[in-house]
Amino acid sequence: MNEADQRATMPGESDERYQEGVVDLLAALAYGELSAFDRLAEDARTAPTLTGRAALSSMAAAEIGHYRMLEQALAARGVAVDEAMQPFAQPFEAFNSSTAPHSWLESLVKAYVGDGLAADFYREVAEWLEADTRELVLTVLADTGHSAFAEREVQAACADDRSLRDKLTLWGRRLLGEAITQAQFVVAERDALAELIIKGSGDLTGIGAMFRRLQSNHTKRMGRLGLG
Amino acid sequence: MNEADQRATMPGESDERYQEGVVDLLAALAYGELSAFDRLAEDARTAPTLTGRAALSSMAAAEIGHYRMLEQALAARGVAVDEAMQPFAQPFEAFNSSTAPHSWLESLVKAYVGDGLAADFYREVAEWLEADTRELVLTVLADTGHSAFAEREVQAACADDRSLRDKLTLWGRRLLGEAITQAQFVVAERDALAELIIKGSGDLTGIGAMFRRLQSNHTKRMGRLGLG
Repeated sequence: MNEADQRATMPGESDERYQEGVVDLLAALAYGELSAFDRLAEDARTAPTLTGRAALSSMAAAEIGHYRMLEQALAARGVAVDEAMQPFAQPFEAFNSSTAPHSWLESLVKAYVGDGLAADFYREVAEWLEADTRELVLTVLADTGHSAFAEREVQAACADDRSLRDKLTLWGRRLLGEAITQAQFVVAERDALAELIIKGSGDLTGIGAMFRRLQSNHTKRMGRLGLG
Repeated sequence: MNEADQRATMPGESDERYQEGVVDLLAALAYGELSAFDRLAEDARTAPTLTGRAALSSMAAAEIGHYRMLEQALAARGVAVDEAMQPFAQPFEAFNSSTAPHSWLESLVKAYVGDGLAADFYREVAEWLEADTRELVLTVLADTGHSAFAEREVQAACADDRSLRDKLTLWGRRLLGEAITQAQFVVAERDALAELIIKGSGDLTGIGAMFRRLQSNHTKRMGRLGLG
């Protein structure tokens, strides 16, 4: 039985539960957009050139465009975005403060790796959603141009600097560890979201397989930065 | 002789001079947008509520929309925005560091008063420009929603706090003084821009009258915040 059939056979109570999980998912995405905006705006401030500053500011602005779409989707479900985001603020900020970058390059790697991981995760979940919500999730996950920018900058900086490359490789591993830790906290606190993920992935084996895919994508991503 | 006639009678060299002044004006506006983005993003970070944070982040994003329009207009003139902005970075940052806000409310007042002053000035200059450029300037000056937000927050905070009101009133006066100081530095350094302003306002009497209008609008603006 595939996931769509599974959901089609859910009882009414589960449908409500499903909607609750979707609201959590959209709210987590919305907080992620605000958080990405914030981080990109901060990076823009410390960019070494005006060109870099303008590029990062534009990417930050694009995140807010995505945020507005999520706000509307939540409003259409009768949910105020600011209230729905509240439970996600603390774990996101915990991740951010436990991985505060010490340089412009650490900051670029963090954004690249963090956004990439989050996007992979949300894309997996999107597969289990009904068409409209899936479309929305995939739209707001669209890269705002940061990836190509980060690849260029990190590759150039590491090309002739082996010790910098090693340092940033370790940094990437730490980011993966912290992201998984905080994601587990979130899921442990949000029953409906946890259920959505468990039902979607089928069972615990399915969740294990998903985690392996996330890790393998992470490794590929590090490779594209010229790290790992 | 009105300004349009005056410009129509300019010799070829002056036309080139006029174009140079326009490039300066658009570049100053562009840097102002980046700067406003930065300040709004910073304020978003310290906003006391998630609602305020989302509102300020959205306003910041709108400034980048304006920035992109100016970038395109400069590109159409064969000018790279980042190079054109360079001369304006230092005076804008000098203004920002000499008026670093110490609280959320000082920050709101600074944005309100600073943007208001700048917008009044640019609107005066826009009157002397040819239609297309005038349209562009007026479009990028459109309020991104910050004004109503600031009025609400500052009025509410000062309603029952006379000493806070006095403090913010002094702050508003200091902002006016610093803004005029920095604007004079800019104009002293940029000959073509200075010429544009002098020709536009007619003569030194015209410039004096313009400054009085800016000051009188500043006073009205402080009144709308419930200050002064």
